[in-house]
Amino acid sequence: MAASDRLNQTSEIISHSMQQSESTTSLAAADHPFKVTVIGSGNWGTTIAKVVAENTALNPQLFARRVDMWVFDEDIKGEKLTEIINTRHENVKYLPGIELPENLHANPDLIDSVKDVDIIVFNIPHQFLPRIVQQLKGHVDRKVRAISCLKGFEVGVKGVQLLSTYVTEELGIECGALSGANLAPEVAKEHWSETTVAYHIPEDFRGEGHDVDHKVLKALFHRPYFHVSVIEDVAGISIAGALKNVVALGCGFVEGLGWGNNAAAAIQRVGLGEIIKFGKMFFPESKVETYYQESAGVADLITTCSGGRNVRVAKAMAKNPDKSAEDVEKELLNGQSAQGLITCKEVHEWLERCNHLDDFPLFEAVYQIVYNNVPMDKLPDMIEELDLGLKESAH
Amino acid sequence: MAASDRLNQTSEIISHSMQQSESTTSLAAADHPFKVTVIGSGNWGTTIAKVVAENTALNPQLFARRVDMWVFDEDIKGEKLTEIINTRHENVKYLPGIELPENLHANPDLIDSVKDVDIIVFNIPHQFLPRIVQQLKGHVDRKVRAISCLKGFEVGVKGVQLLSTYVTEELGIECGALSGANLAPEVAKEHWSETTVAYHIPEDFRGEGHDVDHKVLKALFHRPYFHVSVIEDVAGISIAGALKNVVALGCGFVEGLGWGNNAAAAIQRVGLGEIIKFGKMFFPESKVETYYQESAGVADLITTCSGGRNVRVAKAMAKNPDKSAEDVEKELLNGQSAQGLITCKEVHEWLERCNHLDDFPLFEAVYQIVYNNVPMDKLPDMIEELDLGLKESAH
Repeated sequence: MAASDRLNQTSEIISHSMQQSESTTSLAAADHPFKVTVIGSGNWGTTIAKVVAENTALNPQLFARRVDMWVFDEDIKGEKLTEIINTRHENVKYLPGIELPENLHANPDLIDSVKDVDIIVFNIPHQFLPRIVQQLKGHVDRKVRAISCLKGFEVGVKGVQLLSTYVTEELGIECGALSGANLAPEVAKEHWSETTVAYHIPEDFRGEGHDVDHKVLKALFHRPYFHVSVIEDVAGISIAGALKNVVALGCGFVEGLGWGNNAAAAIQRVGLGEIIKFGKMFFPESKVETYYQESAGVADLITTCSGGRNVRVAKAMAKNPDKSAEDVEKELLNGQSAQGLITCKEVHEWLERCNHLDDFPLFEAVYQIVYNNVPMDKLPDMIEELDLGLKESAH
Repeated sequence: MAASDRLNQTSEIISHSMQQSESTTSLAAADHPFKVTVIGSGNWGTTIAKVVAENTALNPQLFARRVDMWVFDEDIKGEKLTEIINTRHENVKYLPGIELPENLHANPDLIDSVKDVDIIVFNIPHQFLPRIVQQLKGHVDRKVRAISCLKGFEVGVKGVQLLSTYVTEELGIECGALSGANLAPEVAKEHWSETTVAYHIPEDFRGEGHDVDHKVLKALFHRPYFHVSVIEDVAGISIAGALKNVVALGCGFVEGLGWGNNAAAAIQRVGLGEIIKFGKMFFPESKVETYYQESAGVADLITTCSGGRNVRVAKAMAKNPDKSAEDVEKELLNGQSAQGLITCKEVHEWLERCNHLDDFPLFEAVYQIVYNNVPMDKLPDMIEELDLGLKESAH
């Protein structure tokens, strides 16, 4: 068989199996279709709600058609945002120009939006999570399963806590995560991308057709333009999702200094190494493969380092050495935050407390540049250390 | 101790140990200083010769001060290029504007340039290697050691052969490799970057001080602006160095189609996965860590996918679907070649012969797009396959 024939055949097999999966013939029908709610309606929240609603409409045996999206309602020229979304099927404020599925229902009432829900998808800014979770307490059955699209972790007195673990502890529901190289506007326009969904099957799993498993999550999130890989490693994708923002600051520094592509790639290499080391050290259950093989790992790192808020703030800092990170952030981001600035501080405080600062020279260098005015051009000397560290542990 | 104090202390320790290493006090003095010759004088050849000559001047106990650089001589407005380099210390043709060390000696005579040499650094375009190696036959002692800065491998009747293996087989000398995220003009300007040197200590190793080892190679190539990691895995860095160019074509396609950063990152993720798979399958002695932890692995992939000839050709192909790859290459590169076009063909022929085409859907998709007019927008469907493959083998 010629190569082109084989390729055509392969394409047919793939598209055939994709059609099958979309019509759920390979999936056990749920004993009742799963009801899905997305909490959050920013540009990423609305985009994920669009993805999910497209899939629930295609899979009636598996999912309830209607998807609720909780919207913090606001007035748009005399109209409610929820009304606009429900009548004109467009989130004119946060995702203008993108047509939303008619089965996506904007709901201004948080508690009502999770009534009889089976799967909650959290997709709100990091800082709103505690308030939302506290409001949900007592209104969510323990059988409910959740996926968090929020990136990362928080450092508190207990140490490093994954946001998914926070949801589980506060609401008593199993919570996975979704993360990947996903700039929201590109996904919204249905440009091809990939993502990673991580979900640990809980001990009280009720069996195929009765509960959420990896096949259900693939059916819920996979689209022809949004390729989903489902894995177990919630910790791995959460750590990568948080720490990539610190690496992106480092990339922004060397770009702002005009050091070029070699230097930016070096920062990403060192950053990936420190992310893996951090994962191994504090979440030994996470898998090295997650970091270098998943969209939520190396691909998200690359996308984040190629642009976005953290890179922009860091570049501006390089060009205005007299301004503080805080001032640059205010001027540039108009009230939004560069998450890396918060994360590198939290990581520094945590590593200092457990006496591991020297093991993460890039993270520490970024912290010192942001908060202690250490000159940026010291970066190469500061991270030279890492190689020595890896060599010693390898021999 | 406060974090900033610790950081300052760390910086002092590092710079102290770097000074030590530069004055070679931590290295056994060679029984005779090693004589080094660089073969090749393009922009990368001249840049590496500059690096090497700077280090030989700093390490007189270890290296002979004078470094010969073989130059294919040519007339530049009535003057010999070698004379210009030796009197004005500038390679006006291939690296204009960069001052070269006065101990770097341009030599137009290939055989004379390797007289009494201990270390040969090959840095010529891929296609000239066989001719050069044939000319050197009979003029190079078996005790000589070599490092190849050429990227990659060749596919012949014997299968996939590393270029370093070719040198070893033809000249009977041990040969390692140097590869990394190193766009030559940036290294020449002494912008900070990293690289990987891989060298396998041969069985006839003559002992520290009498022969080339990892410390000697670090002293030869490491500069404050050019950070070197020395490892054993010659196969790993060679494979990554060759296959990255195929991945860069894929990146160029999705960029040319206007699919954005998510898609480019996805191609790099899938590409890294296929590079690792190729390494495991055909060079089981190569190490997975090399691909995701070394500059020659993930960092070089990122740099190559962020620009360069392969990306440019592929983008132009996306924008001119009626033109062949060959025509685009001719118009765009002015006689130079996009190595990925050659490599993806060689890889296709090899994988077809050993019946492994289906294991490398990205490499195969790039081949089909370049040589069989398969439409580029089929890429996502074609590489969807990879995930399935990895999943199956993991479970």
